[in-house]
Amino acid sequence: MFYSDFDQLIEKVKSFPTMKRVAVAAAEDEHTLEAVFKAKSEGLVEPILVGNKEQIKEIIKSMGESFQDENIHSANDVVESAALAVKLVNENKADFLMKGKLETSTLLKAVVNKEIGLGTGHVMSHFVIQKIPGYHKMLVTTDGGMMMYPTLEEKKAIIENAVNTLIAIGYDKPKVAVLAAVEYVNPKMPETLDADALAKMNQNGEIENCIVEGPLSFDIAIDKEIAEIKGFNSEVAGDADILIAPNITAGNILGKSLVVAAKAKMAGFIVGAKVPIVLTSRGSSSEEKYLSIVISAAATK
Amino acid sequence: MFYSDFDQLIEKVKSFPTMKRVAVAAAEDEHTLEAVFKAKSEGLVEPILVGNKEQIKEIIKSMGESFQDENIHSANDVVESAALAVKLVNENKADFLMKGKLETSTLLKAVVNKEIGLGTGHVMSHFVIQKIPGYHKMLVTTDGGMMMYPTLEEKKAIIENAVNTLIAIGYDKPKVAVLAAVEYVNPKMPETLDADALAKMNQNGEIENCIVEGPLSFDIAIDKEIAEIKGFNSEVAGDADILIAPNITAGNILGKSLVVAAKAKMAGFIVGAKVPIVLTSRGSSSEEKYLSIVISAAATK
Repeated sequence: MFYSDFDQLIEKVKSFPTMKRVAVAAAEDEHTLEAVFKAKSEGLVEPILVGNKEQIKEIIKSMGESFQDENIHSANDVVESAALAVKLVNENKADFLMKGKLETSTLLKAVVNKEIGLGTGHVMSHFVIQKIPGYHKMLVTTDGGMMMYPTLEEKKAIIENAVNTLIAIGYDKPKVAVLAAVEYVNPKMPETLDADALAKMNQNGEIENCIVEGPLSFDIAIDKEIAEIKGFNSEVAGDADILIAPNITAGNILGKSLVVAAKAKMAGFIVGAKVPIVLTSRGSSSEEKYLSIVISAAATK
Repeated sequence: MFYSDFDQLIEKVKSFPTMKRVAVAAAEDEHTLEAVFKAKSEGLVEPILVGNKEQIKEIIKSMGESFQDENIHSANDVVESAALAVKLVNENKADFLMKGKLETSTLLKAVVNKEIGLGTGHVMSHFVIQKIPGYHKMLVTTDGGMMMYPTLEEKKAIIENAVNTLIAIGYDKPKVAVLAAVEYVNPKMPETLDADALAKMNQNGEIENCIVEGPLSFDIAIDKEIAEIKGFNSEVAGDADILIAPNITAGNILGKSLVVAAKAKMAGFIVGAKVPIVLTSRGSSSEEKYLSIVISAAATK
């Protein structure tokens, strides 16, 4: 089972018996509120806004929308916004979290707070799912935004985060390609050693509920024809659901090349905390923010 | 000055007063000969074929082509093919080199031979030039195929190789973006430190004839609109001619994502030896081989 495009994902979220509640920290941001209200108007989520109440109300008014006052929670500054949004999740008044007009580090500080945060002890990683024109299924790339230079154990955790997310939205046994520059082990290239070790951990049951292959080059991972020309036949080659990047730099360049050069639609969130955390950047379009709300709602338990 | 697409590059090579001569090592390969004969029929290059003469003649016949016997040089095996093709260049009987049906390592062994090779003492790197649909100019990415984990000095050499190649085909002052996951220096990310150092080496005249900026994220490097949203105004942002990848893995993933996912047309060769060396892979299309001959002919002195 796999999703072919975002529309299928949107339909899935629409079919939920109750709407997921998203707590938006420092919601006083026009692009964020546009995306949130689009998701709300489609019956996908119920927003709970935290931040500068006057500014939030002004933006909502300028958008020609109306909103219940009791679902706007006042905070004096962005630090308080972040803490309050996290608290709403912890008190089960919200189901997942979204970043508004504040620095990522400010929000994450509240998330990882040992006493009142949302940490689970598990590695947190950036899960990005995209629809690339011409590829027959949705494709996850990770991690290009959170873990910098993951160790082997951390790469295992990144795979588990991605696999568990896809399983949460309905996949059975996602196909995972661990990327490198080549498709064989070269002791001079540490990425290939890690990829090989991860594939073996999958074979011996240490990494479950998925099929892990690697090292694989990008073209073999998502192009069956090239895989065949290169004599590479496997279950994952040309049919990957998840691509594991060796580090943040390769992952970030890959993700951005897919969006900017390949015109992929993308959505993403941080996985590994108690709930999904939508963390889009200043450069993100309203559509990316909206689709990130959709995938987070879909992945919320 | 810049090239917008491969057609402009083809026109440039057509305008040369004399054709460049390409020595093809182990030419007994159908895809290679197809590309070579396409370039020949357009008046772009004069081929000199080295390898198994009987097989070469058979393939040429099956292609419905004819060819002067004296321009096919017999070799007993691929090692001899490589050595003979290199010798033809050294004796000024050929202008540049192309790989046929042999391992890259076999050809490069002949190239780097201290006595009879084509080395110059300079770093050799893989220069790839591509036309991405939607980007307004040709884009070079390097290095995703040769230098594994370049040091700062080696990155400087990779930039010089790429800049000198563009200058050889007519550019004035290429714009170079040194890629990272972010556009600011973060001491925890070595790629950003190197990128910053390279930009400074450019400012103080150690890297000449170009404008180097970095660290830059991929989207800022080739998308002016995103650069503006992120408040990043510079000469290179959104207008890069050359992208420098931090290492072979990131460079390889980037190059392949541009070709496979973004449907870019690409061409490439090894730069840094006495002459360009066309080194396409088994997965390369005939068109890629042909365009690689074109860019190599254009860059040959």
